[in-house]
Amino acid sequence: MSTVTKSKAERFVIPINPSHLPKGFVVSSTYAGIKAAISPKPTPDASAAPSSGPTSTTSPKPDLAVIVSSKPAAAAGTFTRNAFKAAPVVLSSKMLLDGSRSPSGARARSILVNSGCANAVTGERGMNDAKECAKLVGELLTPAKGISQEPQDPSKQGTLLLSTGVIGVPLPMTAIKRCLSHLTSGNVLRSDADAWHETARAFMTTDTFPKLRARSFELAGRKCGIVGIDKGAGMIHPSMAGPSTTLHATLLGLLATDAPISPPALQKALEHAMSRSFNCISVDGDMSTNDTIIALANGAAPPSPSPSGPVLKAGEEITEEQHPEEFEKFKAILTDFCEEMAHLIVRDGEGAEKFVEIKVKGAPTYEHAHAIASSISTSALVKCALHGGDANWGRILCAVGYAPLPSSSSWSIDPSRVTVTFVPPAEVAKEHRELVVLKDGAPQKVDEVEAGKLLAYEDINIVVDLAGGSDGDAGAKEEAKYWTCDLSREYIAINGDYRS
Amino acid sequence: MSTVTKSKAERFVIPINPSHLPKGFVVSSTYAGIKAAISPKPTPDASAAPSSGPTSTTSPKPDLAVIVSSKPAAAAGTFTRNAFKAAPVVLSSKMLLDGSRSPSGARARSILVNSGCANAVTGERGMNDAKECAKLVGELLTPAKGISQEPQDPSKQGTLLLSTGVIGVPLPMTAIKRCLSHLTSGNVLRSDADAWHETARAFMTTDTFPKLRARSFELAGRKCGIVGIDKGAGMIHPSMAGPSTTLHATLLGLLATDAPISPPALQKALEHAMSRSFNCISVDGDMSTNDTIIALANGAAPPSPSPSGPVLKAGEEITEEQHPEEFEKFKAILTDFCEEMAHLIVRDGEGAEKFVEIKVKGAPTYEHAHAIASSISTSALVKCALHGGDANWGRILCAVGYAPLPSSSSWSIDPSRVTVTFVPPAEVAKEHRELVVLKDGAPQKVDEVEAGKLLAYEDINIVVDLAGGSDGDAGAKEEAKYWTCDLSREYIAINGDYRS
Repeated sequence: MSTVTKSKAERFVIPINPSHLPKGFVVSSTYAGIKAAISPKPTPDASAAPSSGPTSTTSPKPDLAVIVSSKPAAAAGTFTRNAFKAAPVVLSSKMLLDGSRSPSGARARSILVNSGCANAVTGERGMNDAKECAKLVGELLTPAKGISQEPQDPSKQGTLLLSTGVIGVPLPMTAIKRCLSHLTSGNVLRSDADAWHETARAFMTTDTFPKLRARSFELAGRKCGIVGIDKGAGMIHPSMAGPSTTLHATLLGLLATDAPISPPALQKALEHAMSRSFNCISVDGDMSTNDTIIALANGAAPPSPSPSGPVLKAGEEITEEQHPEEFEKFKAILTDFCEEMAHLIVRDGEGAEKFVEIKVKGAPTYEHAHAIASSISTSALVKCALHGGDANWGRILCAVGYAPLPSSSSWSIDPSRVTVTFVPPAEVAKEHRELVVLKDGAPQKVDEVEAGKLLAYEDINIVVDLAGGSDGDAGAKEEAKYWTCDLSREYIAINGDYRS
Repeated sequence: MSTVTKSKAERFVIPINPSHLPKGFVVSSTYAGIKAAISPKPTPDASAAPSSGPTSTTSPKPDLAVIVSSKPAAAAGTFTRNAFKAAPVVLSSKMLLDGSRSPSGARARSILVNSGCANAVTGERGMNDAKECAKLVGELLTPAKGISQEPQDPSKQGTLLLSTGVIGVPLPMTAIKRCLSHLTSGNVLRSDADAWHETARAFMTTDTFPKLRARSFELAGRKCGIVGIDKGAGMIHPSMAGPSTTLHATLLGLLATDAPISPPALQKALEHAMSRSFNCISVDGDMSTNDTIIALANGAAPPSPSPSGPVLKAGEEITEEQHPEEFEKFKAILTDFCEEMAHLIVRDGEGAEKFVEIKVKGAPTYEHAHAIASSISTSALVKCALHGGDANWGRILCAVGYAPLPSSSSWSIDPSRVTVTFVPPAEVAKEHRELVVLKDGAPQKVDEVEAGKLLAYEDINIVVDLAGGSDGDAGAKEEAKYWTCDLSREYIAINGDYRS
């Protein structure tokens, strides 16, 4: 029944328009052999790795990358709420927090990314390794390399860290250190689309395709660009073996823009965007120890040839207080871009054959709508039904009914007001009608043939209208979207056939 | 690797010792053809059903049953928190609530149980149908039938309702009403073990075996018995077809004892027992619209031949205030019995090949331990790992780390204090050592061969010791247990292959 013929990589890897890339960022990546170095036994990957070092042209997928801004950039981040935060999460969030309390705000020059080892559950040694990595990258990125034009302020030269991969095993520092001076040399760091593509590949673990997007926009009289990379959520293939070398799913993301945004404004916009994008996706409901999204804004965007609206002075940054309109515009751009980036994670969800958008509307607050959409999106029964092409309003309704609502509110769902509709994907909207399966709390007679056709598409859109719930229509107009995938045998095979 | 050779029915259906059954209860059951009556097309079940009515000896599995107490019994119940409560849930909980505000407390004479139709999402008609069922049973159970010896008090003649099955479709009232006078006649109602067994079968939907247990105990100078029936959690087989005829999972339970317990004491004991048994199991994390456990205590237990402790007067009931020791004893008996009953649900979980006990200890409160154990038990990744026989401490730790802790507490988990141990099942404890996979937050070297043997058993026991978390050892000694099953391809097949 599937309409899919091409692989996910063929469909979701799209060329980057170089004019969309932000100015003032350079990147480099290499194969450091991180996974092989920490494996108890040689893996097929490791044995295939060349011994000649990271510059070999026959190297496998890169696993180590740096992203460098030509000058200290405003920096913001969102991190996992898991109690077991990995060392790079602890270190990066502390750096941003410390920075936010300083006069210049949170700033960073660079990001070091590795896949293959998460540096999680590695205790004090893991923290020391992470600190050493950040320190080395910072030292290597001196003005002598021709990258920074700014006066040297150590507080602005910080390196943020992103790690994903095996947990419970220390970083292979020898392998990493061997590559750092190479990665940070001026002739290796590049700003072209190919370099960004290779950097996106360095993020991958069991992702089936690199996740890279870019856009341009005008803001405050500047022609700005934004580029994004993310990864997740994949488990290692069974061949790794051994509980001490288990990969786990992690969502990592990087957003780099040359828009002139102050650090607090960037942080606030990022948190808003997160709450409407990365925090609205679910593959299997498990929150990782390493989930991190980092945003950098270096203000290097050139003047727009035909500026509209207010034009910022050189060196000036958008703040929420002084430039509320520009701030709102940037927040909306960032949110929309993050939504696109977040969708890529769900597209590549383990065993996923469906991409499902759940929209809940008619709620008193965004948080209510979000909680209900999240409940539907993580229900194993709903995900199984969608896998099987079943417009199962009963399972959807059940998940609506047990959603944990904000405890501070007395609002409740009114079952007799709930309507559930399956909406055709946009590109085939003309060929199908909307399928109302529950209206005002009452099950509807459904055209089974039409339902079968609608649910055979890869993309499924479900709208749950609470119609105001216990408050009635008047007071409750908020809505939230959530994106999830189906639950398939392939998911079990990926995550359950560890020793088979 | 499985050690299982017999079917679940062969292993978990065990004969009831008649001396354990409570006095003063009679039961009857029949095949009413409920599922067939509401199916849009004849199903194999329906076509196999005899047209000669409910008394035919060739009838399929019973789907309608009554449980009757010889006199009004103290009644208690716990019900789903789902916002979409089915009509029998709304009606039964209201009856108990109204009763609890009356001088005599919550009392009931009988319970009507049906499978095949959940009477959920059926609007006003569903409520009217449920009321009519209860009224009819109450009227039929008159003293003329020789069952009640009590003066007639309409407020004590109530009938509680339990329904499970298809949602969104009204009860087939003609089929049900046709059977009620038969079911409630004095010569059909019986108190023997076979009659209880048939009643347990009437609860079943896609359960693979009837779930019935009984025990005896001495309390307040009486020789008491308790019998329990439960069912869940099963989805209908794909052959049903059509969104308006979708079965959904429901946990139903009935506990009947002849112990002399006052209604408020029964309710309090039941809520405690629930929080340590039925509220500590998960098959797929979906909370049904019909989940209900009802307990009846009719005080009909005869005097013990050799009473120990205080002896209650005839007609006297145990209350928490006047008989605290007896109350605590009953609460402990009920909790232990409910734990046994709850385990049966997990044993019969859809696609389940493993029975997993998660014990979390070293927490500041039971609620903290329960939240963490629940988080581990519902993690798709943990359940997949256990399915594959993988002692994956990383996934367990991850689920510990994202457990939503009680917001009223400032206590937090200290990663460096957490120990995770796989404990051999009791019956093979001598053949294996305990397998410590994480100690004080540090991954341990694990004997893979030994781990493989331990995880090949059907029963898997995992102990997570928080060692007091952020408070250290001194303040946090509470523990909670949770029971779950693995996540298998068979689960996907049962719930995802709806239209295949």
